[in-house]
Amino acid sequence: MARSPEKTSSGMEAENIAEAIIAGNRQMLARAITLVESSKEEHQEKAHAVLDLCLAQQSESMVIGITGSPGAGKSSFIEALGEEIIHRGLTLAVLCIDPSSRRSGGSILGDKARMEKLSTRPEAFIRPTPSSCHLGGSGPRTHETIMLTRAAGYDVILVETVGVGQSEVQIENMTDCILLLMLPGSGDELQGIKRGIMEIADIICITKTDGEQERSASLAQADFEAALGMLPPKYEGFHRKVLLTSALKGTGIAESWEEIATHFSFMRERGILESHRQEQLFRLLEGLVENELKKQFHADPAVVRRKKEIEAAVLSHSLSPFSGASLLVKAFTRRR
Amino acid sequence: MARSPEKTSSGMEAENIAEAIIAGNRQMLARAITLVESSKEEHQEKAHAVLDLCLAQQSESMVIGITGSPGAGKSSFIEALGEEIIHRGLTLAVLCIDPSSRRSGGSILGDKARMEKLSTRPEAFIRPTPSSCHLGGSGPRTHETIMLTRAAGYDVILVETVGVGQSEVQIENMTDCILLLMLPGSGDELQGIKRGIMEIADIICITKTDGEQERSASLAQADFEAALGMLPPKYEGFHRKVLLTSALKGTGIAESWEEIATHFSFMRERGILESHRQEQLFRLLEGLVENELKKQFHADPAVVRRKKEIEAAVLSHSLSPFSGASLLVKAFTRRR
Repeated sequence: MARSPEKTSSGMEAENIAEAIIAGNRQMLARAITLVESSKEEHQEKAHAVLDLCLAQQSESMVIGITGSPGAGKSSFIEALGEEIIHRGLTLAVLCIDPSSRRSGGSILGDKARMEKLSTRPEAFIRPTPSSCHLGGSGPRTHETIMLTRAAGYDVILVETVGVGQSEVQIENMTDCILLLMLPGSGDELQGIKRGIMEIADIICITKTDGEQERSASLAQADFEAALGMLPPKYEGFHRKVLLTSALKGTGIAESWEEIATHFSFMRERGILESHRQEQLFRLLEGLVENELKKQFHADPAVVRRKKEIEAAVLSHSLSPFSGASLLVKAFTRRR
Repeated sequence: MARSPEKTSSGMEAENIAEAIIAGNRQMLARAITLVESSKEEHQEKAHAVLDLCLAQQSESMVIGITGSPGAGKSSFIEALGEEIIHRGLTLAVLCIDPSSRRSGGSILGDKARMEKLSTRPEAFIRPTPSSCHLGGSGPRTHETIMLTRAAGYDVILVETVGVGQSEVQIENMTDCILLLMLPGSGDELQGIKRGIMEIADIICITKTDGEQERSASLAQADFEAALGMLPPKYEGFHRKVLLTSALKGTGIAESWEEIATHFSFMRERGILESHRQEQLFRLLEGLVENELKKQFHADPAVVRRKKEIEAAVLSHSLSPFSGASLLVKAFTRRR
């Protein structure tokens, strides 16, 4: 399954890779993403050179995060929304963030069975990102993947995030608009939904409102609208909607797209889109600084020299982790 | 709602606070947790002094993580399991990790309505931790709260985590045993469950197996057992069980506790518990180092001096974030 980043970098200069991406060469985009995901130092250096060139390319891509609990029907919804987007004459990229698997990466059933129709479309670029390498950190690799995809000039980039939790904050830092997908049902579900998720959502889509669920769907809609009413607005002047959708019946999908378009118009008019993207760039810088700082710390000779001894003292309870951390950081900073 | 950390630290020395915690003074435990959660420098210093003293206290607390999607019935399950634990003559603390709200912290419906019965029990200490302050990082404050609670000598500490995602990795670094709660239902849900969550679970409890759900529950059990069978075992020699539970009917709760006890016996016999706790201590040290490093970086005069200019260059697209990050870190490290 894993592509070799060696292939990517064989002989090709960063300039050529970036040019090809910007010209719309998908194979090169896929290879550059593999390069970005590689942990090898030389690949990282080349990836940064490619990204530098890609960043210079201004892009008008609409980057949309799709989030929701497992089982909320994200894949089916994206498949249906993707068809709608292509039908409207727009080009589409779909990226997946999966922050949940540390040991092996990927879902149990795999990505193959997912988005079957969409993946055969020439207008769509589908890339599952097994971002298992930077768990627990604010790893900016998904962000980098989004930036490469933006440089490729797709009109719409859908970023699917798996699971509900900290990844929400990350997705907010990387996307322009967030759709929260929720199953019909109220009470229990609403109790479980935390403010944070509702607060960052721009549009809520209730999914699978078909068959037996049709009755409970409008109740759920009312519940979510009430819940939104209890929260401060995300943007002053934009009323967040709760839409009923069914990927199976194809209902509410066009409305979802129209609501997304309305949201983008609103953000453009108010200058929110621009300031949001500035904020994203700022967060990326922060994330990169943290990563670089950690890298330098762990490579520092003074740290390497003292690390084993301090770790052993902490593990044998003769030194507290707080004092240990303090000693290690001092070893790094007091070098002069 | 928020307690004042001022009160906590007023006049009391770290030694007295730690002593009171170890002696089982709950009010002091609650205050020390507030101290740990404070972002004020002086509170942090005192908190570390208290933690140093508490860490010296060896504790045999069983620390159990309870995780699962929103709506999986975590509160009801914890309430029922808590009653079972108290019924068996053990003391209990319940801590909650909520990594999902950045803006305001806490759930929409609040914690008041939750665990009503348990919170009136003198044997139980209930503490919701609004860990909203260290989102996106590997913030060790929940870990610190667990350590304080361990020093207080509770037999069992249940740590509830909200949402499914990166917090799973954090909870694995802080607890001895992880229960994954899942609603009955198969197919869809199983597709949505990522390997990572199944991989770290020690016991899977299917919840709400009552009423209309009773039929689908045993199907779900078979599905989850099959899914577990596809994964490598978490510990060689320990067969992970999938239990059917209903907090409403009170079924499967005693069995869940017995399975937890079996798991702890297994871990103790094989020396896994000890090595797992060493690993936790190691991770805590790592998290503290990262925090300290970031703090020193942002307080560094050379960084402060160059930061504004570099940030402005990145935001105006005249400098790439990669080059910007590199320049900032160099400003910090090249001080001699």
